[in-house]
Amino acid sequence: MNTLGTKYRLTLFGESHGRCVGVVIDGCPAGLKFDEVSIQKELDKRRPGQSEIVTQRKEEDKFEILSGVFNNYTTGAPIALIIWNKTQESGVYELRKNIPRPGHSDYTAHIRFGGFNDYRGGGMFSGRLTACYVMAGAVAKMILKKYGIDIVAHTTKIGTVDSVDFPKTIDEIRKQSDNKVRCADAKAAEKMIEQIMEARSKMDSIGGVVECIAENVPPGIGEPRMDTVEGEIARAMFAIPAVKEVLFGDVQSKGSENNDAFIIKNGKIMTGTNNSGGALGGITTGAPIKFRVRVKPASSIALEQKSVDVEKMKPTSLKVIGKHDPCIVPRAVPVVESVAACVILDLMLRAGVIPNVLKENRRA
Amino acid sequence: MNTLGTKYRLTLFGESHGRCVGVVIDGCPAGLKFDEVSIQKELDKRRPGQSEIVTQRKEEDKFEILSGVFNNYTTGAPIALIIWNKTQESGVYELRKNIPRPGHSDYTAHIRFGGFNDYRGGGMFSGRLTACYVMAGAVAKMILKKYGIDIVAHTTKIGTVDSVDFPKTIDEIRKQSDNKVRCADAKAAEKMIEQIMEARSKMDSIGGVVECIAENVPPGIGEPRMDTVEGEIARAMFAIPAVKEVLFGDVQSKGSENNDAFIIKNGKIMTGTNNSGGALGGITTGAPIKFRVRVKPASSIALEQKSVDVEKMKPTSLKVIGKHDPCIVPRAVPVVESVAACVILDLMLRAGVIPNVLKENRRA
Amino acid sequence: MNTLGTKYRLTLFGESHGRCVGVVIDGCPAGLKFDEVSIQKELDKRRPGQSEIVTQRKEEDKFEILSGVFNNYTTGAPIALIIWNKTQESGVYELRKNIPRPGHSDYTAHIRFGGFNDYRGGGMFSGRLTACYVMAGAVAKMILKKYGIDIVAHTTKIGTVDSVDFPKTIDEIRKQSDNKVRCADAKAAEKMIEQIMEARSKMDSIGGVVECIAENVPPGIGEPRMDTVEGEIARAMFAIPAVKEVLFGDVQSKGSENNDAFIIKNGKIMTGTNNSGGALGGITTGAPIKFRVRVKPASSIALEQKSVDVEKMKPTSLKVIGKHDPCIVPRAVPVVESVAACVILDLMLRAGVIPNVLKENRRA
Amino acid sequence: MNTLGTKYRLTLFGESHGRCVGVVIDGCPAGLKFDEVSIQKELDKRRPGQSEIVTQRKEEDKFEILSGVFNNYTTGAPIALIIWNKTQESGVYELRKNIPRPGHSDYTAHIRFGGFNDYRGGGMFSGRLTACYVMAGAVAKMILKKYGIDIVAHTTKIGTVDSVDFPKTIDEIRKQSDNKVRCADAKAAEKMIEQIMEARSKMDSIGGVVECIAENVPPGIGEPRMDTVEGEIARAMFAIPAVKEVLFGDVQSKGSENNDAFIIKNGKIMTGTNNSGGALGGITTGAPIKFRVRVKPASSIALEQKSVDVEKMKPTSLKVIGKHDPCIVPRAVPVVESVAACVILDLMLRAGVIPNVLKENRRA
Repeated sequence: MNTLGTKYRLTLFGESHGRCVGVVIDGCPAGLKFDEVSIQKELDKRRPGQSEIVTQRKEEDKFEILSGVFNNYTTGAPIALIIWNKTQESGVYELRKNIPRPGHSDYTAHIRFGGFNDYRGGGMFSGRLTACYVMAGAVAKMILKKYGIDIVAHTTKIGTVDSVDFPKTIDEIRKQSDNKVRCADAKAAEKMIEQIMEARSKMDSIGGVVECIAENVPPGIGEPRMDTVEGEIARAMFAIPAVKEVLFGDVQSKGSENNDAFIIKNGKIMTGTNNSGGALGGITTGAPIKFRVRVKPASSIALEQKSVDVEKMKPTSLKVIGKHDPCIVPRAVPVVESVAACVILDLMLRAGVIPNVLKENRRA
Repeated sequence: MNTLGTKYRLTLFGESHGRCVGVVIDGCPAGLKFDEVSIQKELDKRRPGQSEIVTQRKEEDKFEILSGVFNNYTTGAPIALIIWNKTQESGVYELRKNIPRPGHSDYTAHIRFGGFNDYRGGGMFSGRLTACYVMAGAVAKMILKKYGIDIVAHTTKIGTVDSVDFPKTIDEIRKQSDNKVRCADAKAAEKMIEQIMEARSKMDSIGGVVECIAENVPPGIGEPRMDTVEGEIARAMFAIPAVKEVLFGDVQSKGSENNDAFIIKNGKIMTGTNNSGGALGGITTGAPIKFRVRVKPASSIALEQKSVDVEKMKPTSLKVIGKHDPCIVPRAVPVVESVAACVILDLMLRAGVIPNVLKENRRA
Repeated sequence: MNTLGTKYRLTLFGESHGRCVGVVIDGCPAGLKFDEVSIQKELDKRRPGQSEIVTQRKEEDKFEILSGVFNNYTTGAPIALIIWNKTQESGVYELRKNIPRPGHSDYTAHIRFGGFNDYRGGGMFSGRLTACYVMAGAVAKMILKKYGIDIVAHTTKIGTVDSVDFPKTIDEIRKQSDNKVRCADAKAAEKMIEQIMEARSKMDSIGGVVECIAENVPPGIGEPRMDTVEGEIARAMFAIPAVKEVLFGDVQSKGSENNDAFIIKNGKIMTGTNNSGGALGGITTGAPIKFRVRVKPASSIALEQKSVDVEKMKPTSLKVIGKHDPCIVPRAVPVVESVAACVILDLMLRAGVIPNVLKENRRA
Repeated sequence: MNTLGTKYRLTLFGESHGRCVGVVIDGCPAGLKFDEVSIQKELDKRRPGQSEIVTQRKEEDKFEILSGVFNNYTTGAPIALIIWNKTQESGVYELRKNIPRPGHSDYTAHIRFGGFNDYRGGGMFSGRLTACYVMAGAVAKMILKKYGIDIVAHTTKIGTVDSVDFPKTIDEIRKQSDNKVRCADAKAAEKMIEQIMEARSKMDSIGGVVECIAENVPPGIGEPRMDTVEGEIARAMFAIPAVKEVLFGDVQSKGSENNDAFIIKNGKIMTGTNNSGGALGGITTGAPIKFRVRVKPASSIALEQKSVDVEKMKPTSLKVIGKHDPCIVPRAVPVVESVAACVILDLMLRAGVIPNVLKENRRA
């Protein structure tokens, strides 16, 4: 349903064209100094209208705290964060409310909810709701940071362009991917932008791949056998609209090449390589958690497409006119990073590695 | 932990070299005529020693019913199924109990459980436990069959060989993939066997890809937003040892090509293509659910590999001598199919489409 | 944590002296005509300041819909309902923030959250949050009504006064208990008011018992063995502040008297008596679900009480001055009724008896 | 369904007249020295045939370990424990399979499972399954003991006889209640036995009350707001057949008497009294958790009772002949204690107070 996580638990609400979008974060440890600025910064990365390659919709995405923070610290009570929607034109949705957009959730939502779903802008299924993931992820990252855990997501593919030449450290990736396409390979980034602009000019869209890396997650995290690190992350990734694939590590073709040898380094057991993507048997190895997520091309395109009128039960066609993203990959990057942060924090809380109260802050 | 599913719920127990492996199935609808033969048939597909390309271990994998079946029908009570282990040589595991096999869960299990884990044959992490998935999946398939749902898994890649020329219907795939590698493309199958034999001769292993297709799942299944069809399936797939990737449908590079147009056929709304793999917005479209799973090369290989002695904290090496699979993909095929059946049944029960009692059987 | 229910699922947020209190209702079937008036009516029953026997605080408790309702119908998306708090005097709480009120959650919240809890008015533990239960219960009752299920709660004891002479039908109980103490025995009601006024005059408080009856719940509801009707209701009741006891039916001393004989009436199997309170083996019998809940005397009293200063670790004393209820039983009545409605709806959804979409309303 | 607990999680299987009864314990910390003798000792307390006041059925209740224990220590893998059933006479159940016993789950199980339930001896609903709680509770107590937590249950009422004069310490209660009725008041115990013998002679049954006390549970345990200590315990208690009431502490009539004053003792904050039963706001105070459970008179009695034939839909009567308990309270005592141990351990694991690996045992 609309709740994700066991101990760090998000519950989303709101719709694209309703009053607001919001998230209730339950299980956030008490005693976290709440940094509102960092949340807004993360939201700004996802926000529409940042550059010419994304949607030109104007949404400020300023958030408000409804509960759970007192005297600038988290209290242990549920944290409710909300973004009020600005008045939006819903007229176009009325016109095509019976004509589901191909590739979008319009049809399945109609079936699942017997036609009572809010069809304006995808309603609860709108990508706009991913702002809630970003808020919850920003809070999760504040906590993970205290435990030395750093997470970055970046674009590794858009259209047919691969990011090939990118740095190895999270810090460098973060710096170098601070561009319109969130790609750490500057040359590839240029070509990606070209392909996006081309798609836009053709009223079409293109997809891509986002990689995410989390460093310093201690070994031993993950709840065997069913609640694996990979499974919990994958399940959450598929709750991001447009994600169709999740892939961990770099599988090699032979066992002898794929197996990551164990070595001792600085008195600690480690793996020499990290083909496993940081998990064996569903439990972290201590190597970076590393996975890639395939994002399909945005389904809302202005090209004419075949559909049906579900009320008249007749074939028809539609053009999805409006301010849509020709490529949602760049805006998916902070979302993937945020969801990963939420899941990793959840797994660490479940493993008892992070406590319910951040003790170093314990009130005298 | 060791429980999978919400309404059709598996709890696994047992170890590779313990007394048994078993599964408790909770939530199975009452009134199902229990077909023991079909369960054994499914187990036989996974069983070791079927041909020269898999492990030569001898395990009969005969199962017993401990509870939940009465007068040949399911009662609604938990169904416990068990396979007793035959006496196995554990001596070799004693010798290397402090030397984790690269690529295996030995090390992470050691960390997670403070060294108390049963290290013999991987203990609870052993692939042997997948027999439990197969038993539970066979039961799930009995029920799904009554609702017209058919599921097949088959090998689409082993080593560098792709299955290219294979039939489109589930029935045909099932028939044509009834070979040692579970591949529905006869020519590819031959080459796959060659590559497996080559890997074996080199004391190495190779991986591959399994595709799974489920037909006639009605539209509207899936619990938005977090419990998506894709996410629930993916999470379960990652609970199968060696799975590193889950991919739904066939993502096309442009939105205009990727979007599945809606059409009307036989008075019903359908999608003309099925690039989405049968799900939009995390909810089934009514088109076949279609996904692929990447299986890494088996980690237990006889080639010498680097590792460490975790007790002495010293580098060492090991050769995993024993009756191991040079390629586990063929034996993973029935496991993937079974786990898919369990998840799909669970989602249908959650959606209320399948009732708690199979009414057509309702006792007079 | 802060989520209750499996298929009809509440997540609460907000604090007594924060910006708001609110609830996200997930899993509410789509297609329910949303009756805002009935929600407000229920809220008014719980609202402070209704008469001289309850707290004289002025709170309007007007609610707003944030999401999940579109064109007056539920959409299947999460329904977020919120009540904004009016400006409140928090000064008094600052003064005694280190002095936990005996019998209140102040101390345990302090321990559990390392002193970061919002101590003003009990923060998230405030009885004010029960307004959220009432909103969610009002929605649940709208649905249950469509299935012929009627629920009433009424006061059966306050102080030492028992309600003895009260009607048998839900409708009559509802009518006759429409008084200040929510007691269906008019004579007892008068004495109850006297005892409350006496407690108030002595700066003390008194407790009581609330009975709840739900009629027309079909037989067969409840998820054996662990998710029993009684257990699920009891667990939820203990999530209401001040509840210390839950008791089902009327246990008789001998088996021969306690067992409810089965009879046939109007062609249906029923029980002649209902000592079991409508459940056997954790599953409904079809007889009314009937239980009683003991509410302890309110802990906030103006009499001087011993406590400690948790910062200075010194004994001290405090008087809880303010607008407090001398008896919260009357205001607990709508809360018990509401929580019961939520749990019963949840169990009916889990049993598949109520569908995800209210079909009779299905959009053409 | 058949799973109880979040981190210490029991899944039950088996039936009264099936092959076995068993439990899978998931989440038991690794590194626990497994004391089989103490489990058997607990089972013996619940076992039938101990004295003349309980059922004269002969069941040895010898358990076996199927998984999860290796070299005498828990491994972190699921622990499956099983008791094989001896051959039992099921003939009598065939005769009355369509005639539900009043007060028993026969009828509701029939409805819930469409008549497919195993009706012999109550099937999965049989009190025999409580042996599984006792096994799981014995394991839980081994762990709790390491953390200084001691739990005792004892009979405080049978028929009309109250236990009045009993000791205050757990140790003393344990010693003095080591009698046939598990009552720590020797004089009351005698009268209880008389009442049981009288009920037996009249082919009737009587009920009673069990009190349970858990000492040294640290303050701050419990997951507010919904997963309260009281609610989690109560929910589990209602999963014990025949329990109809759960009551925490000793509610006093006035707030001034009921509120437990905070005091400082030995440098620690405590409550002077313990009317709250060890919990405020759903969180432990550090005072003993104390609750009482009402057990209804056993429903299986030899006296003639009215019932119906569910197949012929005709009134009939039945006498439940067989070896039944005239009073199940004494045998419920170890069950209540065991279930309490499971829930308290679960809550402590959830709070992170007990780790996943018992560190003091950590393998070198």
